[in-house]
Amino acid sequence: MRPQNIIAKKRDGKNLNGEEINAFVSGVTDGKWADYQTSALLMAMFVGGLNADEQNALTEAMLNSGEILDFSDIEQPKADKHSTGGVGDKTSLIIAPLVAACGVAVPMISGRGLGHTGGTLDKLESIAGYNVNLSTAEFKEIVKKCGFALAGQTADIAPADKKLYALRDATATVESIPLIVASIMSKKLAENLDALVLDVKTGSGAFMREFDDAKNLAAALCRTGNAFGVKTEAVISDMNQPLGKFVGNALEVFECVKILRNETDAQMLRTLELSIELAARMLVLCGIAETIEDSKSKIQKVLESGAALEKFRQNIECQNGDAKICDAPEILLDKNSVEVVVKAAKSGFVNAIDTLAIGAGVSKIGGGRIKVEDAIDYAVGYQCEKNIGDEVIAGETLGVIFCRNNAQAELIGEKMRDAYKLGDEKPAEKFELIMSAVGQKHSE
Amino acid sequence: MRPQNIIAKKRDGKNLNGEEINAFVSGVTDGKWADYQTSALLMAMFVGGLNADEQNALTEAMLNSGEILDFSDIEQPKADKHSTGGVGDKTSLIIAPLVAACGVAVPMISGRGLGHTGGTLDKLESIAGYNVNLSTAEFKEIVKKCGFALAGQTADIAPADKKLYALRDATATVESIPLIVASIMSKKLAENLDALVLDVKTGSGAFMREFDDAKNLAAALCRTGNAFGVKTEAVISDMNQPLGKFVGNALEVFECVKILRNETDAQMLRTLELSIELAARMLVLCGIAETIEDSKSKIQKVLESGAALEKFRQNIECQNGDAKICDAPEILLDKNSVEVVVKAAKSGFVNAIDTLAIGAGVSKIGGGRIKVEDAIDYAVGYQCEKNIGDEVIAGETLGVIFCRNNAQAELIGEKMRDAYKLGDEKPAEKFELIMSAVGQKHSE
Repeated sequence: MRPQNIIAKKRDGKNLNGEEINAFVSGVTDGKWADYQTSALLMAMFVGGLNADEQNALTEAMLNSGEILDFSDIEQPKADKHSTGGVGDKTSLIIAPLVAACGVAVPMISGRGLGHTGGTLDKLESIAGYNVNLSTAEFKEIVKKCGFALAGQTADIAPADKKLYALRDATATVESIPLIVASIMSKKLAENLDALVLDVKTGSGAFMREFDDAKNLAAALCRTGNAFGVKTEAVISDMNQPLGKFVGNALEVFECVKILRNETDAQMLRTLELSIELAARMLVLCGIAETIEDSKSKIQKVLESGAALEKFRQNIECQNGDAKICDAPEILLDKNSVEVVVKAAKSGFVNAIDTLAIGAGVSKIGGGRIKVEDAIDYAVGYQCEKNIGDEVIAGETLGVIFCRNNAQAELIGEKMRDAYKLGDEKPAEKFELIMSAVGQKHSE
Repeated sequence: MRPQNIIAKKRDGKNLNGEEINAFVSGVTDGKWADYQTSALLMAMFVGGLNADEQNALTEAMLNSGEILDFSDIEQPKADKHSTGGVGDKTSLIIAPLVAACGVAVPMISGRGLGHTGGTLDKLESIAGYNVNLSTAEFKEIVKKCGFALAGQTADIAPADKKLYALRDATATVESIPLIVASIMSKKLAENLDALVLDVKTGSGAFMREFDDAKNLAAALCRTGNAFGVKTEAVISDMNQPLGKFVGNALEVFECVKILRNETDAQMLRTLELSIELAARMLVLCGIAETIEDSKSKIQKVLESGAALEKFRQNIECQNGDAKICDAPEILLDKNSVEVVVKAAKSGFVNAIDTLAIGAGVSKIGGGRIKVEDAIDYAVGYQCEKNIGDEVIAGETLGVIFCRNNAQAELIGEKMRDAYKLGDEKPAEKFELIMSAVGQKHSE
């Protein structure tokens, strides 16, 4: 099967069959397809779309391009959560210990940050010694031992996705629902899960800015997960403002430890609320709880008892990190960092926050990556003090930049301030944290 | 300007401005765009199309990626002919000497064969010693000296086109009118012509099988040529059967020399007829003749007087070829070739000919290239004995395969025979050689 023929078929708006999609994915994996042929087909797929059969075939071929984890020797149900990415989105570090403490195994393969979004692996690496580069054997061993493990995608998991994602990023073919679904699900299905909960973000700091796009993506993800025998649900959550109190790697881990220590303050509440919402669904899907309410009370118990914190401590030890942060989270904060206040230029109500600008600002001073190869400064970040709907007085603190020097603060200070759109009236829209949910019952 | 932004714009159905198209073409030329980015944009252009402004901007950028020939020291008007390619299409070798003998300079940059279509350069190289690899200086010198030169595209002429064409061929983005137009015209405009006549083929052996597609391509080519100040006309000619008597490199040169020697036989007539039609339009566009009739009588004169043959001889000498073929064209025929007759399996009228199959058959035994790097056997080919509308009796000769051994004849014999669709009735359609013409007056 010549690549040209397969490309031409999709180019002309026809549907590809399973054999053709397999030929494509194995050609990508073994290098028989040149990158320029792959990107031509990706563009044809982007423009022409994929139907459900094609999307499933693509997901399956990408999944089968690599290893599928074997957890047959783990008795507990296995579940994971995946987020489409946002600013200050740190729920993985709370959900994994919560759910593990309730008896669910969580084999969580995560990613790194790029652009304005953070990545769980980067956050974890702000814990001294924490190792996210686990072999498959180590990964499984840690899941078995402490209930969850957090690691990067090895070369063995969906290698086709690694190649395709790099090409999509360079060729403006990222924002395609079927391609996103195949990319996410090929990795998640390799975890051999019983249940999967997706956190699809929408709003000014999300990949899917429009609610309808997020809903379509959520539905496609659920449809695909369930088609492959994984009980899958999605929550559409608000990313019109950073999630919780902190943005920035060490600062976000600090927030998580505070929450796991039951030291949640008002500004951290949304982080906890979303974590519980997602975790509760995981437990129900795994059959650990009957209802969401039942599930939430179980979660509340392991949080209050300190069992979740203990799980986190155990995991940090298993992954060679400095577990003392569980007792003294302030260890995470760099004493040499400079804190610069961002002040409101006028009085008014916060009507909107350009969340992408906040994420991009933190990236710009080293908290994230502009390019894949950029190094990260774990200490820098931003503390959110005001949310949408809050009233502020001219000169009042909107937030605090954690940086290395005043030059960095000057570089981004104005942009951070301008990210807050102030109006004379309280905004009509409330931006509920949980905007919608797509259950497996609703999926086709 | 990031490639991704330009790709995304076209992907989303928007029009690119001149600056964006220039950034693309210079990125392709200097290697700043990766091949996979280029092919993604080519696919987006293929699917989304280009409007007239974009097409002109692309043509201009590709033209300006290389050298534009300077013929300011040549007094005669300069004209060229370009064909979209077919089977047995050998008119360049007749037109160039005819037109040159009438006082027009013909700086003809030609191509090589690929797939079922032949290439002028390959045909010329079947003349012992003939050199098509000329420097720009040599090329110009030969045009000046004998009125025409035939050479390959140097690295200096439209280098962006070379890269783009290779990528299009590998990524199923060839058959796009705006991309074809930019490719053809960027090279032809580099010849700094006064006039250009295009031979757009249509039918079973043509790139554009459908008449309407051919007509659209012809119109787009004329529009572009005239927009750049070159008087451009197109003829749409029939490629539902091979043109003239022979298919195959040396055999086609043999046919041309026979025609230039006024030894045209019945089966060669269509070759001569099309050559005169195209040449006549070149003379009118150059102002050498007032009307097509006037032009045709001038051409008839230089043909009958032997002046055109002398021009060809002079050119062969200039390009280091063996000019004795002008006196003894049979030198071109390989005495060691085996001639195997293809016979009709039943009686009937030739209703259709699968011209592509004939061209592909000749390629298969070495007369053309399956892959770009294939070597050519100049001696092999095919002699056409029957045309559409002819009556044949079972066992009668349809054509003759010129090959190296019987194994080759067996390899393609059946396919050559099956290329002739025989019916009980004479076909209704006549397939006129000249199907339509698109004049510069008709173009927008």
